[in-house]
Amino acid sequence: MRKLLIANRGEIAVRVIRTAHKMGIATVVVCSDADRDSLAARSAGEAVVIGPAPGQASYLNQQAVLKVALDTGADAVHPGFGFLSENAEFARLVIGNGLLWVGPAPGTIQLMGDKVAAREAARNAGVPVLKGSDGPLDPAADPLQTAERVGFPLVIKASAGGGGRGIRLVTESAAFLSAMDVARAEAMASFGDGTVYLERFVQEARHVEVQVLGDGTDVIHLGDRDCSMQRRSQKVVEEAPAPDLPDEVRERIRESSVNLAKACGYVGVGTVEFLYDPVRREAAFIEMNTRLQVEHPVTEMITGVDLVEQQLRIAGGESLSLRQDEVTLTGHAFESRINAEDPDRGFFPSPGTIDTLTWPTGPGVRVDSGVAEGDTIPPFYDSMVAKLIVHAETRPAAIRRMSDALAEVEVAGIATTIQMHKDLFARPEFATVSHHTKFIETAPGLLKETT
Amino acid sequence: MRKLLIANRGEIAVRVIRTAHKMGIATVVVCSDADRDSLAARSAGEAVVIGPAPGQASYLNQQAVLKVALDTGADAVHPGFGFLSENAEFARLVIGNGLLWVGPAPGTIQLMGDKVAAREAARNAGVPVLKGSDGPLDPAADPLQTAERVGFPLVIKASAGGGGRGIRLVTESAAFLSAMDVARAEAMASFGDGTVYLERFVQEARHVEVQVLGDGTDVIHLGDRDCSMQRRSQKVVEEAPAPDLPDEVRERIRESSVNLAKACGYVGVGTVEFLYDPVRREAAFIEMNTRLQVEHPVTEMITGVDLVEQQLRIAGGESLSLRQDEVTLTGHAFESRINAEDPDRGFFPSPGTIDTLTWPTGPGVRVDSGVAEGDTIPPFYDSMVAKLIVHAETRPAAIRRMSDALAEVEVAGIATTIQMHKDLFARPEFATVSHHTKFIETAPGLLKETT
Repeated sequence: MRKLLIANRGEIAVRVIRTAHKMGIATVVVCSDADRDSLAARSAGEAVVIGPAPGQASYLNQQAVLKVALDTGADAVHPGFGFLSENAEFARLVIGNGLLWVGPAPGTIQLMGDKVAAREAARNAGVPVLKGSDGPLDPAADPLQTAERVGFPLVIKASAGGGGRGIRLVTESAAFLSAMDVARAEAMASFGDGTVYLERFVQEARHVEVQVLGDGTDVIHLGDRDCSMQRRSQKVVEEAPAPDLPDEVRERIRESSVNLAKACGYVGVGTVEFLYDPVRREAAFIEMNTRLQVEHPVTEMITGVDLVEQQLRIAGGESLSLRQDEVTLTGHAFESRINAEDPDRGFFPSPGTIDTLTWPTGPGVRVDSGVAEGDTIPPFYDSMVAKLIVHAETRPAAIRRMSDALAEVEVAGIATTIQMHKDLFARPEFATVSHHTKFIETAPGLLKETT
Repeated sequence: MRKLLIANRGEIAVRVIRTAHKMGIATVVVCSDADRDSLAARSAGEAVVIGPAPGQASYLNQQAVLKVALDTGADAVHPGFGFLSENAEFARLVIGNGLLWVGPAPGTIQLMGDKVAAREAARNAGVPVLKGSDGPLDPAADPLQTAERVGFPLVIKASAGGGGRGIRLVTESAAFLSAMDVARAEAMASFGDGTVYLERFVQEARHVEVQVLGDGTDVIHLGDRDCSMQRRSQKVVEEAPAPDLPDEVRERIRESSVNLAKACGYVGVGTVEFLYDPVRREAAFIEMNTRLQVEHPVTEMITGVDLVEQQLRIAGGESLSLRQDEVTLTGHAFESRINAEDPDRGFFPSPGTIDTLTWPTGPGVRVDSGVAEGDTIPPFYDSMVAKLIVHAETRPAAIRRMSDALAEVEVAGIATTIQMHKDLFARPEFATVSHHTKFIETAPGLLKETT
């Protein structure tokens, strides 16, 4: 690989460029008109504007991205996360034009994008799954009976959904049939596919996940992460390894995730996500993400492995450079996602110009940012502008290190979620791992009334 | 250990405070009047002004430092590097007042401070030493014969010197006796001790060193470093591990350094320094530093061990927390010392106010800084204001990463040595490890004429 096109923006585009340059690979980034002066555009060897600000007209325009790759002589395409990263059609387009696709085979992306098929593949690989409808719910075959077999409360999920979208909670039998009708109609409207399925609902669950890495033949795991600190189903704080997980659960999710990836002939990095029920001490498959995760740095911090470098090497045809027994997990890492949002105004996005910006420094501190002082944050995209990552020997030491690092951040000109992170890392529930995916929304005193 | 007094300033004070806070240990920093608003003073739990700006009246005032430790209820003293860090008398004062001393025993400091005695101890422990006078030169016992046995060129060194001070090169027999007289007089004037000794002079040598860690009983090493990129005998760039060292040399210096430290019952971190002759492929003992080194972060990057945490744990009475076979060396690290000096004016110190300051970010990048934007650098102290540290899988990748990181630095208001570092990392001699300790002064085109 000599020249890499990055089909993304913001911090992940900068992140990929950094590793490419470290490896001596030239870079081209595509950008929208709104991002022509962005840190990503300034960091890349070349930056090419492909359309106006809205993502549909730029970052999601497959033909425009492909044209830049071909015109600039790139020999590979890295999709980052979001945008085209889990689009099997785009992966096929890239490969069909003789370029390397930095990601798994289109067929793998497609399989895992179909949540019913993915669940079936997971069960076949020995991955623990939640009790549910075992496939699409057939509205003609007494769906209420299926629901009662799963038990209430349960959730109705859109087969084409994912990432927290297309989910409906039903707490009692009497409400089921009408909820099912609404869920099917919503799924059809949102995803163009009305297929839904059922899963048992777990109260106060944690989100744990396993990082896998494959070269099409061999697959290894790089340990687990916990991403239970969420707001509106979006991860806010992530950590590695997952704390307070029984040994047998940890072993099972790691091994079965590797088996699932092996069964797919998995190429590149992937993440198998689980719901963990701390009362029953059971983990259950949610979905598999066929791309780099936002939270990949916490795994890098405890393994010393550069996941983007692994992606690029494997896409270039190399075999896995390390065996499972060569993976060592050291210490504990946290990541705080810093969003340009105003907590005093219901976490409404806060675009604008960053007048001053100081990041924390020192040992065990890493900042992956998509912005620099003086930059203007456009209002068109995801509000995450940077990630603050820390590493220390133990979880308590890493919590103290994150608190110190957050205290060092200085931002003026835009509102950010820094103060919420300071509050979260000071919460006793976080220290004792008694938080869960609904903690931010339900813990008294954490969010202001307006939210 | 509940409360630690830091008897230092600048980046190393901030560095020690960071680890203490991570460990849940409270901090007090002493400072001069000129440093009352410094980053170190702002970072510590408490900051106490102990005197006016000059070091003799503040950071070197043993009684004033001790008084603050006792008054604030500190139970330990960390001396950093420089100032009182290798002062056996101060270590005894601290210990005599019932406080923990973060460093080796006063007797060890004293032994290694006497360069002739240290050389003797090194030879007894099997550490390779340069051919030389094998002890102090006796001016009454035919010193010219001793000199001719050593061979020319040779260097006359002050027994009480060190760190590049008190060294005189003699290239031919005829000049020896008068040079000896001058060296003895200089040594008496500079150090209050006219004792000198002789060592063979090595042209174009490299500086390599071994990091050791002991608890009074056991000693391990944490690999080696190379600090050959120097200017006027001051290290400018350091790296770990030392590149291009024959296996048998690496083994010998590591093992013999551990043996030397064991023979002293060494407590804490220490560094055994060697001159490496790449032509003869031989290493020879220079001296042992009984404190934390400026360049310790490169070792932290390749080992994952927090050396300051190890210092504090061992000072608190803990045994070594890892065995030699648990130390793993991963990848390659560089450190660039960033000095507030003006390369266009002969590297004259450039104190002043830092109007803007942006440090690099991203994976594998660490900044240990003693200053923040808006801070004023006083003219009274060492001109090193920060250290830029990078880590990557291989030496070439780490060189590229450092070049990228240096390009990200933005400083206004003071002159710095950033551009010199950019030039150094672009030099082919650096990539091929054909540089040496005189490279910066002798390579054409590297320094401006005025220097």
